[in-house]
Amino acid sequence: MRQPAGRSARRSGGERKPREERWAELIEVATQVFYEKGYDGASLQDIADRLGMLKGSLYYYIQSKEDLLFDVISAVHKQGLEVVRGRADVPGGPLDKLESVIVGHVEHTCRNLVPTAVFLHELSALPVERREEILGSEHAYQGVFRDLVEQGQAAGQVRADLDPRLAALSILGSTNWVYRWFRPGGTFTPEQIGAEMAEMAIRGIATEDVLKARTA
Amino acid sequence: MRQPAGRSARRSGGERKPREERWAELIEVATQVFYEKGYDGASLQDIADRLGMLKGSLYYYIQSKEDLLFDVISAVHKQGLEVVRGRADVPGGPLDKLESVIVGHVEHTCRNLVPTAVFLHELSALPVERREEILGSEHAYQGVFRDLVEQGQAAGQVRADLDPRLAALSILGSTNWVYRWFRPGGTFTPEQIGAEMAEMAIRGIATEDVLKARTA
Repeated sequence: MRQPAGRSARRSGGERKPREERWAELIEVATQVFYEKGYDGASLQDIADRLGMLKGSLYYYIQSKEDLLFDVISAVHKQGLEVVRGRADVPGGPLDKLESVIVGHVEHTCRNLVPTAVFLHELSALPVERREEILGSEHAYQGVFRDLVEQGQAAGQVRADLDPRLAALSILGSTNWVYRWFRPGGTFTPEQIGAEMAEMAIRGIATEDVLKARTA
Repeated sequence: MRQPAGRSARRSGGERKPREERWAELIEVATQVFYEKGYDGASLQDIADRLGMLKGSLYYYIQSKEDLLFDVISAVHKQGLEVVRGRADVPGGPLDKLESVIVGHVEHTCRNLVPTAVFLHELSALPVERREEILGSEHAYQGVFRDLVEQGQAAGQVRADLDPRLAALSILGSTNWVYRWFRPGGTFTPEQIGAEMAEMAIRGIATEDVLKARTA
């Protein structure tokens, strides 16, 4: 939640909580409107109408539609990153952590289909600098996966000939893609998808020794 | 290339070739304009300007902007489907074919980044019936991958406990995702990406026996 300095000052004090709630509601509604109409098709007027606010009141929170898109995308990206980092940042072997990271990422995606779709479809509507501000110059998300693959190679658990970046992109592809076909109440639960995708991914990159131990 | 009956009659005879060429050019330019501006942001006027045609002349080929999007998406989908079906429709074992299908799909995606992006980003702008007309009610593309996984299970080459649809979606996810990060002249060639993704995918789904034989 990026806030210009002047704003956070105004948001402190006794009225803090209601405004934070209002902010959360604004992000939620904006996400939904961007999803339904696309960023180009959505107007601040649409969002204000949905909130029962005057359009002018939105400028108390944001300066432009682009600001709002930035905040919407930042929010879901930050949340997802916390999930995968939290699962990577525990004691244990790199492949166990990678497995847990994949499951967490799939479940987070399945439970946040609308914000994920806005993130993936509308990111390119932001100027390059703001995109990089969100993703990080080193692609923070991808980095979590790549680091674990590299740690797996160092531990002799991941095939040495595999390029860690390609492995990370392959895993991110199959798990991100879930947002396009998963429907709540459909054939598979988020847990099933997470477990099966993790199994395929780990087997796809593991050394023979790990695979033998896995089946034994 | 869908053509209303009345049109194809008008397009026969001596002038056929120039008009087919004009049509190909129209599809190419429309793809580029939809890519740059998004379907919502693009107008038939933009496309006519780029072609150096009067907007009215476009109506000789199509009836609406939606028709054009349909034709653009159909074209790349049909082409990609021909690639994967061609590689699945040869003599050989199911996993060898799946490997070849994955390589073909990745290479096709890398060489058709712009039409693929339009296909994947703008498909949802078409009404459901037209989407299904392209994808097929059984999702023809996914079907090629799923059928090979099922054949692999029947042959004892693919883990029996794996859901073939989930396996197909996982492989399609990692290979489709390539359109988002591949850049010509970057670190990896299409051939490298295809080969590594195929290796990971096959290992991810194969039985122990196949894996042993693969390393031996």
